[in-house]
Amino acid sequence: MDAQSFREFGKAAIDYLADYLENVRDKQVLPNVEPGYMRKLLPEEAPEEPEDWREVLKDMDRAIMPGLTHWHSPHFHAFYPTANSYPGIVGEMMSAGLGTIGFTWMSSPASTELEVITLDWLGKMIGLPPQFLSCSPGYGGGVLQGSASEATLLCLLVARERYVQRLHEKNPSLTEQELRATKAKLVAYASDQSNSSVEKAGILGSVPMRLIPADEKFQMSGSNLRAAIEADLKEGLVPCIVISTLGTTPTCANDPLREIAAVCSEFGIWHHVDAAYSGAALICPEYRYICEGIELADSFNFNPHKWMLVNFDCSALWVKDSRELVAAMSVDRAYLVHTQQDAGMPDYRNWQIPLGRRFRALKLWFVLRIYGVKKLQEYIRAQCKLATDFEMLLRGDDRFEIFTPAHMGLVTFRLKVKHMQNFNRLS
Amino acid sequence: MDAQSFREFGKAAIDYLADYLENVRDKQVLPNVEPGYMRKLLPEEAPEEPEDWREVLKDMDRAIMPGLTHWHSPHFHAFYPTANSYPGIVGEMMSAGLGTIGFTWMSSPASTELEVITLDWLGKMIGLPPQFLSCSPGYGGGVLQGSASEATLLCLLVARERYVQRLHEKNPSLTEQELRATKAKLVAYASDQSNSSVEKAGILGSVPMRLIPADEKFQMSGSNLRAAIEADLKEGLVPCIVISTLGTTPTCANDPLREIAAVCSEFGIWHHVDAAYSGAALICPEYRYICEGIELADSFNFNPHKWMLVNFDCSALWVKDSRELVAAMSVDRAYLVHTQQDAGMPDYRNWQIPLGRRFRALKLWFVLRIYGVKKLQEYIRAQCKLATDFEMLLRGDDRFEIFTPAHMGLVTFRLKVKHMQNFNRLS
Repeated sequence: MDAQSFREFGKAAIDYLADYLENVRDKQVLPNVEPGYMRKLLPEEAPEEPEDWREVLKDMDRAIMPGLTHWHSPHFHAFYPTANSYPGIVGEMMSAGLGTIGFTWMSSPASTELEVITLDWLGKMIGLPPQFLSCSPGYGGGVLQGSASEATLLCLLVARERYVQRLHEKNPSLTEQELRATKAKLVAYASDQSNSSVEKAGILGSVPMRLIPADEKFQMSGSNLRAAIEADLKEGLVPCIVISTLGTTPTCANDPLREIAAVCSEFGIWHHVDAAYSGAALICPEYRYICEGIELADSFNFNPHKWMLVNFDCSALWVKDSRELVAAMSVDRAYLVHTQQDAGMPDYRNWQIPLGRRFRALKLWFVLRIYGVKKLQEYIRAQCKLATDFEMLLRGDDRFEIFTPAHMGLVTFRLKVKHMQNFNRLS
Repeated sequence: MDAQSFREFGKAAIDYLADYLENVRDKQVLPNVEPGYMRKLLPEEAPEEPEDWREVLKDMDRAIMPGLTHWHSPHFHAFYPTANSYPGIVGEMMSAGLGTIGFTWMSSPASTELEVITLDWLGKMIGLPPQFLSCSPGYGGGVLQGSASEATLLCLLVARERYVQRLHEKNPSLTEQELRATKAKLVAYASDQSNSSVEKAGILGSVPMRLIPADEKFQMSGSNLRAAIEADLKEGLVPCIVISTLGTTPTCANDPLREIAAVCSEFGIWHHVDAAYSGAALICPEYRYICEGIELADSFNFNPHKWMLVNFDCSALWVKDSRELVAAMSVDRAYLVHTQQDAGMPDYRNWQIPLGRRFRALKLWFVLRIYGVKKLQEYIRAQCKLATDFEMLLRGDDRFEIFTPAHMGLVTFRLKVKHMQNFNRLS
C-alpha cells in the first residue's frame, strides 16, 4: 500500500468511525449472533493476493458490525465504562504511525519524556502529593501500564522482591534457595469487593490474596485488615502488600485509605491503591475526600482509559520510590545499555513487565490538551449527575429498590421480588 | 470535540503521518536532544481551557519530532525492527474507534471471533501443525498478547501452576502451604543467547531461569540442556519449563527444537518456543526447516509486530491445550459470567495476564488482507536479500570481518582492530 492509498483509506476510515459514533445510539447494544457466526462469513485461509481496502471496509459492515457489542452506545450499561473520544482515537493512530518503541530513553526520547510530563500533569490534576511526581525531588514518578491488572501485579511483584532483597541484606548468608523458600510465606490482602484482577495478581505472583470481608459499608476496615494480618503472623506467614480499592467493582465503595495506611505502616507492608475507575473523578476537587491518606501509600493507579476519555489502553501508575521498580524488574543486556541512562530520565522498560512499549502518552496528551482540565471536570460531573438523576427515577418507581445510592457514576438497585414475573430474563 | 472536527483533525493526522513516512529517510535517525529537553518546551501543567487540535499538531513538530528516534527510517539499524504499515495504522485506529473490550466472547463477539479466525489463518501461513489451531479438533488455539515478554511469562506461569495442580492430584492430602512451598523448587531453562525478557519472565514468575551456555553455533544443544536438568534433579529441584529460541537476539541463531523436545518429553517439561523475530519468516516455506520438531512443543510465539507489517503490539501465541491456560488464569466473578461461555468460543480473559483487551485482531486482519500472503512473502524475501547483499559488501571490504553470516535479516560483523583508530566512537 502506498502513501496515496493510505491517505484515501485512512480518510475513509475516519469517516467510517465518525459515522459509526454519530449513529451508535440507534444500534442494538448486544449483537444477535451465535458463537461461531463469523466462520460462516470469512474464508478459511488468508488471501494469497492483495485485496482492495474498499473490500475490507465492506467486510467491516458484513462480518464485524453484526457481532460487535456497542460499548459506546448510550444504552450500554454492562460493566464499568471504557473510554473513547475523538482526540484519543487520533492519538492512538499517531502513536501507531510513528511506531517508536520506548523501552529506554534513548530508544525514543520524546516517547519517554512526554510520558514523564503528562503523568506529572495528570498527577497534579488529581491532587496527588508531590512525592509521587517526577518533577519533585526524590524518586517518585508515573508510568503508563496497559491495565490496572498489570499495575497491581507489578506492585505485588515489586513488593515481593523488595521483601526478599531486604531479607538478604539482613541475612547475607542465606542461599538463593533459602531466599526463594521464604517467598512461600508471603501473603497479600485486599477487600472481598476488589476486582477479579486483584485476586488474579495474587495467583500470578504466587502470593495468596486474602480477600478481607468488607464491612456494612462494603469497605475493608482497618480493624478487619489488622485481624487478618495478625492471624497470618501467628501462622508464621509474612504480610507483603495490601491493595486498597477506591471504587470497588460491585458498589463503587471506597476503602478508608488512612486507616489502612496506619496498619500497613505499623507492619511495614507495601500499600497499593487501585482506583481504576474512580480515580478519574479526582480531577474534581469535591471528590478528593476519598483519597484522604494517599500520601502514605506506596503506589497509586487509575485508568484514564475507563472514565477520562483516553482510549484503552492507558492505565496510570505512580510510585513514591521508582528505585524499587528498577531493582526488581531490571535485566541488563549489552544491547539495552545507552550513554544517558544515569541522566535523570527513566528507562521505562524497568518500570513494567514487558520489554516493548508503545508511545501511549500521545493519546493522553491529545486528550488533556484538546479538552483541557475544565471540560474534563464538566464531563465527570455530568456523568455523576446522570447517576443521581437515575437514582431519582428509581426512587419514584415502586417496582425498584435502591441497594446503594449514586456514587460516582454508579447506582445499584434491584427489582422487588413481587415484580419479577413481569420481566423477561435479561441475558 | 464533535464529529465534524474529528473528521478534519483525523484527516489532517493521516496526512501528517503520510508526509512523515514518505520523508523519514531524510531525517537524522537518532535525535540530537539531551535528557530533559522536553520540559523546556511544554508547560508544567495541563491546560485549563481546551486547545485547538491545530495547536497540538504544531506542537508535534515543535516538541515531539526533535526527540523522536526514527525507527522506520531505512537508516535505522539498532535492535530488531518493529513493524509499521499503512494498513496496520488504519487497523489500530479502527480498533481504537470501535473501542470494544473483548475479555469474554459476549463482551464483544466479533472481537473474539476475528482473533480466533486470523490466528488460524496465521498459523496455517507459517505451517503450524493442526494441534495448535482452533479449527482442528482438540483444545489448541491462538491468542494475541501484547509482547513476547508477556507470552513467555504467561507460559511459565501456566507451566508452574500445572505442576502444582498435578502434584495436588497425586497427593490430595498436601495443604495449600505445602503446595506453595514446592514452587520454590521449580527451575526453568533457556539459552544464554535468549532475549532479556526470558530471564525477566523467570524473575517475575519466581522460577530461576538457567541460562544454558550455547554451543559453537550459538545454539542450546539437547545435551547441554540435559546436563543442566540432571544437575538440578540431583539437587532435588524440579524442571518446569524450557524456552527454546528461534532467532536469538545476539546472532539470530536457532535452537534445535527436535533435540530439545526429546529432552522435554523425557522429563515431562513444558516446551515453549520463542520465535519473536524469526517466526515471520516461516510464511516462506524455505525457512520452515528451523521449525522442525515444533509439533512436539506445548506453545509457540512470534511477533507479527516485529517483522510482518503489523504495528506494535501484536504478539501471536498458540498453545496445544488451552484448558491449561484457563485452569491457571481463570478468576470468576458474577459480572464476568455469560450465557454462551461453554459454546466453543474462548473467553480470552483466561488466556492472558490482564482482564481488559483491545480489538487487536483488526490490524492483523487488515494487513493479511491488504497485502495477501504472496506480498508478505515477497517482503520477507526482500529483507533477507538485503542482509545477504550487505554481507557481500562486507566481504568485499577488508576493514571488516563477518562474525556470523546473514541469517534472516541479520549479519553480525566487526571492525578489524587495526582499523579502529579511523572511526569515531559510535554512541
